[in-house]
Amino acid sequence: MQETTGILVDLFFLFAAAKMAGELFTRIRQPAIVGEVLVGVLIGPHTLGLVGSPDSALIDLFGGDEKAAEEALTVVLDVIAELGVIILLFFVGLETRLRDLTEVGGRAAMVAVLGIIFPFVLGFALIWGTDPVAAEDLGLEAAFVATAMVATSIGITARVLGDIGAIRTREARIILGAAVVDDILALLMLSVVSGLGEDSFDVLELALTAVAAVAFVVFAALVGTRVIRQYSIHLEKLRIQNAPFLVAMIVMLGLSALAGIIGLAAIIGAFLAGMMLAEAKERYNLEQQALPVYEFLVPFFFVIIGTKVDPGAFTDPTILAIALGVTGLAVLGKLMGGGLASLGLSGRSAAIIGTGMVPRGEVGLVVASIGASIGAISDDIFSVVVFMSIATTILAPPVLVWLYRGYRFTAEEVAEAPEEPPLPDL
Amino acid sequence: MQETTGILVDLFFLFAAAKMAGELFTRIRQPAIVGEVLVGVLIGPHTLGLVGSPDSALIDLFGGDEKAAEEALTVVLDVIAELGVIILLFFVGLETRLRDLTEVGGRAAMVAVLGIIFPFVLGFALIWGTDPVAAEDLGLEAAFVATAMVATSIGITARVLGDIGAIRTREARIILGAAVVDDILALLMLSVVSGLGEDSFDVLELALTAVAAVAFVVFAALVGTRVIRQYSIHLEKLRIQNAPFLVAMIVMLGLSALAGIIGLAAIIGAFLAGMMLAEAKERYNLEQQALPVYEFLVPFFFVIIGTKVDPGAFTDPTILAIALGVTGLAVLGKLMGGGLASLGLSGRSAAIIGTGMVPRGEVGLVVASIGASIGAISDDIFSVVVFMSIATTILAPPVLVWLYRGYRFTAEEVAEAPEEPPLPDL
Repeated sequence: MQETTGILVDLFFLFAAAKMAGELFTRIRQPAIVGEVLVGVLIGPHTLGLVGSPDSALIDLFGGDEKAAEEALTVVLDVIAELGVIILLFFVGLETRLRDLTEVGGRAAMVAVLGIIFPFVLGFALIWGTDPVAAEDLGLEAAFVATAMVATSIGITARVLGDIGAIRTREARIILGAAVVDDILALLMLSVVSGLGEDSFDVLELALTAVAAVAFVVFAALVGTRVIRQYSIHLEKLRIQNAPFLVAMIVMLGLSALAGIIGLAAIIGAFLAGMMLAEAKERYNLEQQALPVYEFLVPFFFVIIGTKVDPGAFTDPTILAIALGVTGLAVLGKLMGGGLASLGLSGRSAAIIGTGMVPRGEVGLVVASIGASIGAISDDIFSVVVFMSIATTILAPPVLVWLYRGYRFTAEEVAEAPEEPPLPDL
Repeated sequence: MQETTGILVDLFFLFAAAKMAGELFTRIRQPAIVGEVLVGVLIGPHTLGLVGSPDSALIDLFGGDEKAAEEALTVVLDVIAELGVIILLFFVGLETRLRDLTEVGGRAAMVAVLGIIFPFVLGFALIWGTDPVAAEDLGLEAAFVATAMVATSIGITARVLGDIGAIRTREARIILGAAVVDDILALLMLSVVSGLGEDSFDVLELALTAVAAVAFVVFAALVGTRVIRQYSIHLEKLRIQNAPFLVAMIVMLGLSALAGIIGLAAIIGAFLAGMMLAEAKERYNLEQQALPVYEFLVPFFFVIIGTKVDPGAFTDPTILAIALGVTGLAVLGKLMGGGLASLGLSGRSAAIIGTGMVPRGEVGLVVASIGASIGAISDDIFSVVVFMSIATTILAPPVLVWLYRGYRFTAEEVAEAPEEPPLPDL
């Protein structure tokens, strides 16, 4: 048997379990992503232990050193998960066009900014004040948790709004616009926070990372999109099959690696690559071509996240209390931000906008996984953030449906066919 | 920086280099796959060393143990390459339908069988007689080299025949039919030979592996295809998006893992999964959906194979002589097999059929990589087999074009539009 056979078996279990859980959760009208993470918890080493242990062939490869083999297996799964989350953020980028923001501009930006400030402050205060098993650097840990509480996962909300035919309402457009601003700001915050994780706190380094992050984003958004807009037509001259799609994958991998090298999270590069290539996506059908790669690789990210969660952590009442507290503040923060930014709209509109921003979904999970990988958050707090991401993702959809009950759609809202939800089903 | 950043940089270099080389080789009218392997040699650790060395973050993860970190990086790249070759063989399986064989049946089967016997015997004799740096088990090494000399890579030939409009000629149909038989027989031989590699020679084990391989193939071909034919219609009832494609990926990973567990090469499971799902490929558009995954992952296999080749080996005149000898016999064996099986046809037809079977392409590389991974062949002989695979792949196309020069296509041959080549451009 080859040394890769055991890993292949793990990959099969992870993928099959993710897809079966996704199917089950779709049937009980819950987001598939929630099923994927939960089944990861179930088959992971902390629970059933179906995956995550090296087999004898792999241990032999490391001269019998079981710990090294286990570490190597973790690296393999982390790389596969990383490829998954890179494709995920590439897709989010493909859907992000700055020009779409102008329509509901001001209000959306306010929803985004206030919806970032409130959860961040509340979350930071909670962890700073209560964490009993402090990581090496409590401020850094609090900053990571707070950042995970900031980012909205628009895929879930957009899907719900699409399902009930409300994607063209004013509230929906504000939510979608706010989510774009929110994504960009959250990624910037993540860059800064993960830059902090490099060494101990250093104002100069913080400033440098922030500058690098902003420069990277601005360069990609302004120069990159322009280059793609002007020169992407030449991709037709390439002779290899499906050259535009392959060039898109090269850009995606290249900017991800570059982001990593300059100390940012790789996904920021992937997101920017997507945003640049959004300029050429219709001409070359990039979304349709990237979709199978997305569907094959992204589930690995969610299910592997799940395998890292130790459900036993929640038997500790303090951890459980922190998890509930973080979740409550994550909801409260978005409702406060959305509500304040909606002054002048009806109470129901404000509630819809606030609720629409609640799901953290994959974005919270991404922040958690980066925090764990650079050792900025403890294992328990990692589980707390995953809990919060899942709980907010489960809570929001039924509330949204309820808020829209009895809503009389205007002719305009109904006339336009609902758009495809901006992200494929997770 | 995360521990995966360095690996991501390697993946970027590998993918970008593979695609650029593919583009270049397509432009100079050579198979893209040749460019991908050669650029792998160029950027690999034996030459430029652009990829394949762990960075400091990865070494830190293994507590400063550089050798373990290097081994872990190799495992990561091997798993990515393995996923690539699994998708590749899945695609080959998708294109293989036993019923297509009936048309040119007898002649094609004879071409395949004789085209296996001659190269195998010649190759085995050469290595057995001359290898100066014998592996632990010379018989096993000779068997691996001989097996690599057996398998035809039909993708290259089909592409050439398609390009010159000859895909409907009688010779082309015989070659395509023979290639299917050849693929199946070669995979069976590979199963047996790699089963041998488990331990030292043991007749009982050999028999068991052979029985397992045949049982697996027969079961998948008869029961599996029937199950898919009858029940695949129910896949429409699943709720997750693109369920049939995702189920296909689950079956592919599952049979690959299963093949590995029972001691066969994982790709045999992937091939059988493809053959089973060929029954449902039109209904669910499986090829078109699997294609982007193919295009994203398969290049990694070829370029990573290239990185394992040490071009320095060929400065040793003995190794160079063996490489040339193996290549010469690989060509001669197929010409003899094809010629003998073509008795009764014109000399030109016999030459076309023999030449069409010459490229070893990816199949030779797959055998080489499995032989190396289980330690059955030495590093030098690995490089020899890669040399043979590339050389035969480069040699055949111009000869085929030359043999068809001045050929007057019949009305029937021209009337039917040339089919798509059975494999996407590599």
